[in-house]
Amino acid sequence: MFRIKRLCVIGVGLIGGSLARALKEARVVRHVVGCGRTRSELEKAVRLGVIDEFTSDPAVAVKDADMVVVAVPLGSSAAIFRKIAAHLSADAIITDVGSAKACVVEAARQTLGSASPRFVPGHPIAGTEQNGVDASFASLFEEHRVILTPVDETRIDATTRVREMWEHCGAQVEMMDMHHHDEVLAATSHLPHLLAYSLVGSLATMNESREIFRFAAGGFADFTRIASSSPVMWHDIIFNNKDAILQVMETFSGDLDKLKQAIENEDREQILACFSRAKQARDEFTVKHKKKSLINNSE
Amino acid sequence: MFRIKRLCVIGVGLIGGSLARALKEARVVRHVVGCGRTRSELEKAVRLGVIDEFTSDPAVAVKDADMVVVAVPLGSSAAIFRKIAAHLSADAIITDVGSAKACVVEAARQTLGSASPRFVPGHPIAGTEQNGVDASFASLFEEHRVILTPVDETRIDATTRVREMWEHCGAQVEMMDMHHHDEVLAATSHLPHLLAYSLVGSLATMNESREIFRFAAGGFADFTRIASSSPVMWHDIIFNNKDAILQVMETFSGDLDKLKQAIENEDREQILACFSRAKQARDEFTVKHKKKSLINNSE
Repeated sequence: MFRIKRLCVIGVGLIGGSLARALKEARVVRHVVGCGRTRSELEKAVRLGVIDEFTSDPAVAVKDADMVVVAVPLGSSAAIFRKIAAHLSADAIITDVGSAKACVVEAARQTLGSASPRFVPGHPIAGTEQNGVDASFASLFEEHRVILTPVDETRIDATTRVREMWEHCGAQVEMMDMHHHDEVLAATSHLPHLLAYSLVGSLATMNESREIFRFAAGGFADFTRIASSSPVMWHDIIFNNKDAILQVMETFSGDLDKLKQAIENEDREQILACFSRAKQARDEFTVKHKKKSLINNSE
Repeated sequence: MFRIKRLCVIGVGLIGGSLARALKEARVVRHVVGCGRTRSELEKAVRLGVIDEFTSDPAVAVKDADMVVVAVPLGSSAAIFRKIAAHLSADAIITDVGSAKACVVEAARQTLGSASPRFVPGHPIAGTEQNGVDASFASLFEEHRVILTPVDETRIDATTRVREMWEHCGAQVEMMDMHHHDEVLAATSHLPHLLAYSLVGSLATMNESREIFRFAAGGFADFTRIASSSPVMWHDIIFNNKDAILQVMETFSGDLDKLKQAIENEDREQILACFSRAKQARDEFTVKHKKKSLINNSE
């Protein structure tokens, strides 16, 4: 039977907090130690029943833990690994939740030493534009995908433990090559965030910006929701998946230029074909997405 | 007391149908004549109680109507105006619901003849990505803005009648210069639609497209919702607001290039500033938007 004796969550925010809640609700974890930098947030997490105790020192937090989840912004992963490496139990499994994977694997290899084969790179495809333990909830991962990107040296039993942990949260776990993960996420998540930030930024600096936001309709609210995400977290993600992002930006800019050219040339057929292709792809995606949420009723 | 004796709705789709429903619910219209090209859709509109009778001939539809609402795709406005001009009652008020206004005013001036001063250009800022009379509902315009862009020759009493009509649907009516309207809408509505279509189109042609859509999360669904809008309607809007759209695309592309440059140069400060500015603007917009929907409870 799957059991975690002592779970250590480093970074008790939306993701880390929701994971602790989900595992507690599934009754597969006995004790949760939280670790973070803001004492008031950790006290709140205890009050909310998300964690059982806390410390601000990662080296202390991992003591005797059989499962360590690093749920900090990507740019902080290496520093956390460095602090915990010498204090991990001999059988501790370590995993993370970062939105880019090659950079985390690189950091783990350089810092975790003999624990490196027990590190399983992971990425739950779930979240909201909200942050902090206040926003966490146990069903966040239900019917959502979690991608694991184990590398050659990753121990199979470590990957199995992490897979089981996520399945107990209701997630669908998939394996993927880490570079492939980074390319796919650059396209589906990182680029849309860049476009939303860039669009709202552009509009905010225009002369009519006051009116622009005043006359924006519902579609605009949906389209720009992701521009309300944490700037620090996202600036971190961008630089940790720089190459894949630049490549997908290049493709997108080229396609946007072609669209602009077609508008200038009044090439109605090309525009109609472009819009129709997009609508078809989007509608197909929606059908799958809806089917998923009908099964689960959580979205 | 405001009353419409005979309302003629040309184009009984989401907008035209919702307007008829709203005016019926407000009990300010006695009889509604629908006009369209698809007989089955018009029969459905009668069954749904949206209209009382129908014809496929615009010239017949406007007979004896005191209010004529043209709710067809922008590219069809001129043809409709041409067909109805000689058959309008001497006191009929004419208005439209198009997403761009300068092109409609131009068409009205060229085709409506002596009725031109009784034409009031209008644009309800409301809608969904759905189409057709099936998707129409009476509360669509409640607490939403309707922009009217009367020109020099527009009769004041005509503008007043159209304003009152929309207010009876629960809308907030505002006056705006037509060119200003077209610029603001290019930024808040037309550009986001182009970006969503372009992004989904780009992703659909990538090698990993199957996986890309498989691993897309909730944020992606929101961001791309508007790419499920009608390609025909939107290709029409784009060409009817070409100049304003090209200008705002130019600004956006320039800003996106700067962002790309900043990522290449690893200029963390610039990226963080860009994201933070966008989040602030978007959060401010959201607060106003939420306040609006709290008052109304309709969104």
